[in-house]
Amino acid sequence: MSVEVIAIGGYQEVGKNMTAVKVGEDVIIFDMGIHLDRISMHEDTDIDRMHSLDLIERGVIPDDTLMKDVDGKVKGIIFSHGHLDHIGAVAKLAHRYDAPLIGTPYTAALIEKQIKGERKFKVNNPIRPLNAGSKLKLSKDITLEFVQSTHSIPQAVFPVLHTPEGIIVYALDFKFDNHQKVSPPPDYKRLRELGREGVLALIVETTNSTNYNEVKTHSERIARNILEDVMRGPLQEKTGMIVTTFSSHVERVQAIADIAKKSHREIFFLGRSMERFCGIAQKLGILKLPKNASIYGSPKAINRALLRADEDRANYLLVTTGHQGEPDALLPRIANGRTPFNIKKGDNVIISAPIIPNPTNAANRHIMERRLKLKGARIYPNAHVSGHAGREDHREFLRMLKPQHIIPAHGDLTMLSAYAELAEEEGYRIGYDIHILRNAQAQVFKS
Amino acid sequence: MSVEVIAIGGYQEVGKNMTAVKVGEDVIIFDMGIHLDRISMHEDTDIDRMHSLDLIERGVIPDDTLMKDVDGKVKGIIFSHGHLDHIGAVAKLAHRYDAPLIGTPYTAALIEKQIKGERKFKVNNPIRPLNAGSKLKLSKDITLEFVQSTHSIPQAVFPVLHTPEGIIVYALDFKFDNHQKVSPPPDYKRLRELGREGVLALIVETTNSTNYNEVKTHSERIARNILEDVMRGPLQEKTGMIVTTFSSHVERVQAIADIAKKSHREIFFLGRSMERFCGIAQKLGILKLPKNASIYGSPKAINRALLRADEDRANYLLVTTGHQGEPDALLPRIANGRTPFNIKKGDNVIISAPIIPNPTNAANRHIMERRLKLKGARIYPNAHVSGHAGREDHREFLRMLKPQHIIPAHGDLTMLSAYAELAEEEGYRIGYDIHILRNAQAQVFKS
Amino acid sequence: MSVEVIAIGGYQEVGKNMTAVKVGEDVIIFDMGIHLDRISMHEDTDIDRMHSLDLIERGVIPDDTLMKDVDGKVKGIIFSHGHLDHIGAVAKLAHRYDAPLIGTPYTAALIEKQIKGERKFKVNNPIRPLNAGSKLKLSKDITLEFVQSTHSIPQAVFPVLHTPEGIIVYALDFKFDNHQKVSPPPDYKRLRELGREGVLALIVETTNSTNYNEVKTHSERIARNILEDVMRGPLQEKTGMIVTTFSSHVERVQAIADIAKKSHREIFFLGRSMERFCGIAQKLGILKLPKNASIYGSPKAINRALLRADEDRANYLLVTTGHQGEPDALLPRIANGRTPFNIKKGDNVIISAPIIPNPTNAANRHIMERRLKLKGARIYPNAHVSGHAGREDHREFLRMLKPQHIIPAHGDLTMLSAYAELAEEEGYRIGYDIHILRNAQAQVFKS
Amino acid sequence: MSVEVIAIGGYQEVGKNMTAVKVGEDVIIFDMGIHLDRISMHEDTDIDRMHSLDLIERGVIPDDTLMKDVDGKVKGIIFSHGHLDHIGAVAKLAHRYDAPLIGTPYTAALIEKQIKGERKFKVNNPIRPLNAGSKLKLSKDITLEFVQSTHSIPQAVFPVLHTPEGIIVYALDFKFDNHQKVSPPPDYKRLRELGREGVLALIVETTNSTNYNEVKTHSERIARNILEDVMRGPLQEKTGMIVTTFSSHVERVQAIADIAKKSHREIFFLGRSMERFCGIAQKLGILKLPKNASIYGSPKAINRALLRADEDRANYLLVTTGHQGEPDALLPRIANGRTPFNIKKGDNVIISAPIIPNPTNAANRHIMERRLKLKGARIYPNAHVSGHAGREDHREFLRMLKPQHIIPAHGDLTMLSAYAELAEEEGYRIGYDIHILRNAQAQVFKS
Repeated sequence: MSVEVIAIGGYQEVGKNMTAVKVGEDVIIFDMGIHLDRISMHEDTDIDRMHSLDLIERGVIPDDTLMKDVDGKVKGIIFSHGHLDHIGAVAKLAHRYDAPLIGTPYTAALIEKQIKGERKFKVNNPIRPLNAGSKLKLSKDITLEFVQSTHSIPQAVFPVLHTPEGIIVYALDFKFDNHQKVSPPPDYKRLRELGREGVLALIVETTNSTNYNEVKTHSERIARNILEDVMRGPLQEKTGMIVTTFSSHVERVQAIADIAKKSHREIFFLGRSMERFCGIAQKLGILKLPKNASIYGSPKAINRALLRADEDRANYLLVTTGHQGEPDALLPRIANGRTPFNIKKGDNVIISAPIIPNPTNAANRHIMERRLKLKGARIYPNAHVSGHAGREDHREFLRMLKPQHIIPAHGDLTMLSAYAELAEEEGYRIGYDIHILRNAQAQVFKS
Repeated sequence: MSVEVIAIGGYQEVGKNMTAVKVGEDVIIFDMGIHLDRISMHEDTDIDRMHSLDLIERGVIPDDTLMKDVDGKVKGIIFSHGHLDHIGAVAKLAHRYDAPLIGTPYTAALIEKQIKGERKFKVNNPIRPLNAGSKLKLSKDITLEFVQSTHSIPQAVFPVLHTPEGIIVYALDFKFDNHQKVSPPPDYKRLRELGREGVLALIVETTNSTNYNEVKTHSERIARNILEDVMRGPLQEKTGMIVTTFSSHVERVQAIADIAKKSHREIFFLGRSMERFCGIAQKLGILKLPKNASIYGSPKAINRALLRADEDRANYLLVTTGHQGEPDALLPRIANGRTPFNIKKGDNVIISAPIIPNPTNAANRHIMERRLKLKGARIYPNAHVSGHAGREDHREFLRMLKPQHIIPAHGDLTMLSAYAELAEEEGYRIGYDIHILRNAQAQVFKS
Repeated sequence: MSVEVIAIGGYQEVGKNMTAVKVGEDVIIFDMGIHLDRISMHEDTDIDRMHSLDLIERGVIPDDTLMKDVDGKVKGIIFSHGHLDHIGAVAKLAHRYDAPLIGTPYTAALIEKQIKGERKFKVNNPIRPLNAGSKLKLSKDITLEFVQSTHSIPQAVFPVLHTPEGIIVYALDFKFDNHQKVSPPPDYKRLRELGREGVLALIVETTNSTNYNEVKTHSERIARNILEDVMRGPLQEKTGMIVTTFSSHVERVQAIADIAKKSHREIFFLGRSMERFCGIAQKLGILKLPKNASIYGSPKAINRALLRADEDRANYLLVTTGHQGEPDALLPRIANGRTPFNIKKGDNVIISAPIIPNPTNAANRHIMERRLKLKGARIYPNAHVSGHAGREDHREFLRMLKPQHIIPAHGDLTMLSAYAELAEEEGYRIGYDIHILRNAQAQVFKS
Repeated sequence: MSVEVIAIGGYQEVGKNMTAVKVGEDVIIFDMGIHLDRISMHEDTDIDRMHSLDLIERGVIPDDTLMKDVDGKVKGIIFSHGHLDHIGAVAKLAHRYDAPLIGTPYTAALIEKQIKGERKFKVNNPIRPLNAGSKLKLSKDITLEFVQSTHSIPQAVFPVLHTPEGIIVYALDFKFDNHQKVSPPPDYKRLRELGREGVLALIVETTNSTNYNEVKTHSERIARNILEDVMRGPLQEKTGMIVTTFSSHVERVQAIADIAKKSHREIFFLGRSMERFCGIAQKLGILKLPKNASIYGSPKAINRALLRADEDRANYLLVTTGHQGEPDALLPRIANGRTPFNIKKGDNVIISAPIIPNPTNAANRHIMERRLKLKGARIYPNAHVSGHAGREDHREFLRMLKPQHIIPAHGDLTMLSAYAELAEEEGYRIGYDIHILRNAQAQVFKS
């Protein structure tokens, strides 16, 4: 029985991840993501109303048209976690496959939301939540297992396929974090067991593979400690206070809420995506907000909240979207004077996010920060830690899993290459058991 | 008789240059520029209709309100060259002073154009052209002299004041270039003579003072040679061809025209500012375009030209505005598909300009280049040399002039400081004879 | 009564700090440091045997010859903390002044050690330990107070002079760290009181003033957490394990010991300076090593320890000098194969220090790391946090102290300027109440 | 008949280039270079006396031990040009093969010199000079052709193999330079003919493949113009004057001599390698020095020359080795005060070389420049242009040759990958017709 890994998206860029694995006649698909960069290149795009072929041509979603030549039956579409570069294309692509959509409960709820927002296509695939630590038989030959992972969103897992030819591990995206409060640590024990059982192939993210400086990614505990020190003063001052972070980073949102809980300030989480990600997390019992916290997502509710905060600035903490300075998000609009909340001299703005590296973000963020500063705000950038494994984390991962074959993914050629050099240090060889694929290429493992 | 140098603008930023010099009861003003950065921070601004006080508050033009406290009579407003960061505020500020506007003929023509475009203020100051190498008596005690300089625009000069207390040299902006075709080399001989006569104070630009790598700025001959090599292939190919550069950089425009002259291609210079700067330069006999070249500035004429070039791409060379990727300029609009000229696979785009360092430019340029590449264009960035003196050029300048006092200008504190360290190497001392001023500060030289 | 601040060293470089303050006829000196860079430029230098004038000429120690023109009597030489750029020149310069040497007990012990090592000069000045929180009358008009600070060495203080003209605060070097285990947090309450009493002048370090990214310096708690995560795996593995850090960074050394305490490994602290700094700290009860830890400083003892560790690598943790890769320090010598401890495949090397930015360090560190990697070691660089206040820490400091005058120190012109711009944001003005001095310049505050 | 390309060295690093091509039963070897970095890692190495196996283990020379498993007869060892990373291992490796050493006359002379210096091995292979534009039959099936190229050393060629299966082009190292004085431009016409005849495989250097800024490498004309401007002032001043550049860069040496020819200064070319490379070039009529120039290579002659120049500094121009600051080379020793020539205030030092990027060079160069500056010299760094093709040069090269297969070489994985992405833009695909090899891997082209 042959096993084939087909690179559909995310092998030449950071984004629009999608990979197919063919085991005999059965096909499994991992992730259906969008390429966020490309969207911002065509800002006028109303993606909800667009056809998938247009989006493929523009490079926004993976080009899965090659799947029509893949001879086999799709048995499941599996999502590793709920970030948009992994689930964002589900509403555009899933309806072409007669197969269930599988993710952890939080991921599944986000997929459902994604499908509901779609205007062009009708997506009727069943959605099957599966918990970390559980298994699901997908076909006679293939059983799916979700192994607990950690990342910068709750309920991230390593989806693992048990096949007659060996185990296939899909490791997009993860970090090794033993100190998250919302999520348990990765299931190292199970990973080591898999290694002993025999891993045929590892498909693995490479986001931090070119970072030779921070080789073991800092834990969320570090972010929490930094936030504690940075927020302490501002919470006590009689000035306005804003924190901005990733809406989907529930662990971070929880940390902000926990730190602010004991202060006299009322906490407003503001923004449409804040409502989406945190609202669902709250409903599923993942996020536990204190009594003095509320989430507002509709423009009207946000404006009302901002108005209250503007009039009584010492008594509110605003947690907003907009950390990249993207012009239509909330914080940039506040910076721009387009909301009822007016920045005043001495207001504190804490940015719990990095600049996601690309020149547009750098410019947007720069403009936002400068506008805030011109209005007198103090800015604390970069209260953040990465959500992706570092080089030495990857090395440990390889030692746990001992895969026969490695397919680096989720990056451009430079990142895949940097990962490959790491794997070479561990005894693998490019072209033999390390396979660098380009989108639309496939690797067959003979049995 | 006391001499006082008053820093009005450009002492905390690159832009909005303006300096006053008071000699006894007479006051001389140098330059009235805008801060281009600040405008792009408030993109919706229609500057032609705005009041100067609004513009001052936004940091777009120099804050000359302090001049009301300066006890003396303004005898002349002198412009060193025609770039907007030196003349761009003339229409907003000059009418407050009862004094003539003085510049070289090309600079004077640009000032006139600037004033004509103004909608808010009526500027009636007389405009007095003065040639490099000439003198003009401004008051009983002060004679102005224009000493030939070189920069990235024609007819740049060092304005020099002869006063009873010594000579004052205003050296914003210059490079030492012995190989320009449009402009003669700087008048080193006269500079040395001034040094022997006795320079009381030198006010000097610092743009390249933090560049420790290219310490003698490359001549325009280098840019010409680079362009020759880069343009040779594209001129012969049967594909579309675009060069973009600074409209005001007539030397560069001349070089592009000279290189393309012998090719079979017709040359179109396109863009409103291209028409302004090159049109005037042509009328004054500075720019000499070959027969196969035309300039188009109106939207209609540009569109017609682009349409012709699109249909017969092998036979045209387009020279356009838009090298910074600024969204409304021509090349970015071409990149965006918003003009009749469609980029096709193999078209060559040569960018004869650096990215003027700031994150917005970096982002705009990046987006423009990526769009051009997605459409199949080959891009040749950075066919350019700087227009500002390097550290070793500055050292030679100091040795020529031997000024008693030095006031570094045209930069932020880091740039002024880097220049000051250079001057220290030449025997000056910060706080004694090197004076670092902030906007609105003044330095008095007792006689 | 006039007050004068005289910049002697450290106002044009990071290193060789020395400042004099003249109050009426009394003179107080702060710090006598060396410039470490300059020593490594003349590697063959045997500094212990050299004369101070030679060292002055080479730029290694502050040029205090100008003090002969200062009309007044030196009443005390005060040391802020025990780093070599603050105390390293004491044995070369102190004997010229008839005044006591004053520091906290740990600093005083290090000064004593410094003087004992001297071969050229006989230094007989009395050494007076003074605790943080205590005062000492230095003359009729001047009382010294030590206010608790935090830095990357124990018992760092803000030396404060109470004078008839107001308070003078000397703030070289500090960070605001509320989570050190060896040192209590800074005495914010006392700093605020001083602000209310009236601070005439603040002399302040500027190390991190150009860091716009980490604006509140991370606490040592962060370093401890990072080390915990990084050391956990290696402590359990059966391979060799080395940690390298600053010998004087007792807080860090304590953290390393605490983390390793519960492991099965025996801990060896190795290196001459490790013995000096940690030995004294241990004797004074500052550093509390666990039972499974020993310190070895002599070449013979070090070799014996390395031999034992080499034979039984799984059972030892080596904590060594040499984090900058400086060729004669221990870790680079291990990397080079010149010690009895041979690096083997899988050994873990943790570098709890940054590259102190200069090209020689970058090269040495690079070579060391590459040699270690060639031998199979895994390297974890940069498990570290800074010991210097960030921009927003400085802003808070200014708000606490509300000084009338500010003199930025401990940096080159770029760093002093960056600090000055921060002070401008807080309402100060360069040239009025912010004074940028060069070595050998003085600032007089008239009363 | 199968064709196989075997990567021996230079496929994971910049240096120690060596590639074998097997055509049927015949084997051709290209280049035998050393890895300069690795030598400087083991500074105490006396390479002339060392055995090849030691050098292989240390990574200094290519590991050609795999050649014993290659079933075939070596018919020729071909050298593309005379740089040490291409010929430096000839004396250690060539004697194992019963085959002639083939290079252009200048390359052949340098090989001869290399072999004469060897102490460990006896190398008796015949040396066969072959001119650019000539052919040589190597076996029944294989004919070698040397096609004129340009690089930063004279007589660089593209060695081309004509085989029954198609043409194989070896393109290490080259640039497209139409303005060299010592060397004619590349033979573009012949390259296009080869493309029409059918190129089976291109083995190609990738040095500048990650440079997205200078995409068409500047011609030597640029370097000459820069040198003219930079040298003009110093030649006239009455101070000492030094230029340092690559000894083997005869084109540059010629330019320096030409510029200085008309000055009153006598020109001394100083240094052992200066004598080697320039002496041979002079003997072969490649380098034409003016009457006022001499070359000195022995320590005694150099010292005598330096003494003369020291006493009469206004009348000499010294052209020395040591541009990387390598401690034993001449210029660093002058900077260090270890020669009879003492740097004095105002002496001019022009560095016509980049920092070859690695931290040791950066440190050495930094220390050298600082020492020179401390002694009062003015330094002009970076009067240089690259000797390697830029991305758009590579694109044109591909369009000329239209190879069926591409093997990027002479770089680490990042550089090979960056080249591969360029080739993808031209329609090739990684894994199909772009082959990324690691040292010791081979690629077979079936016929």
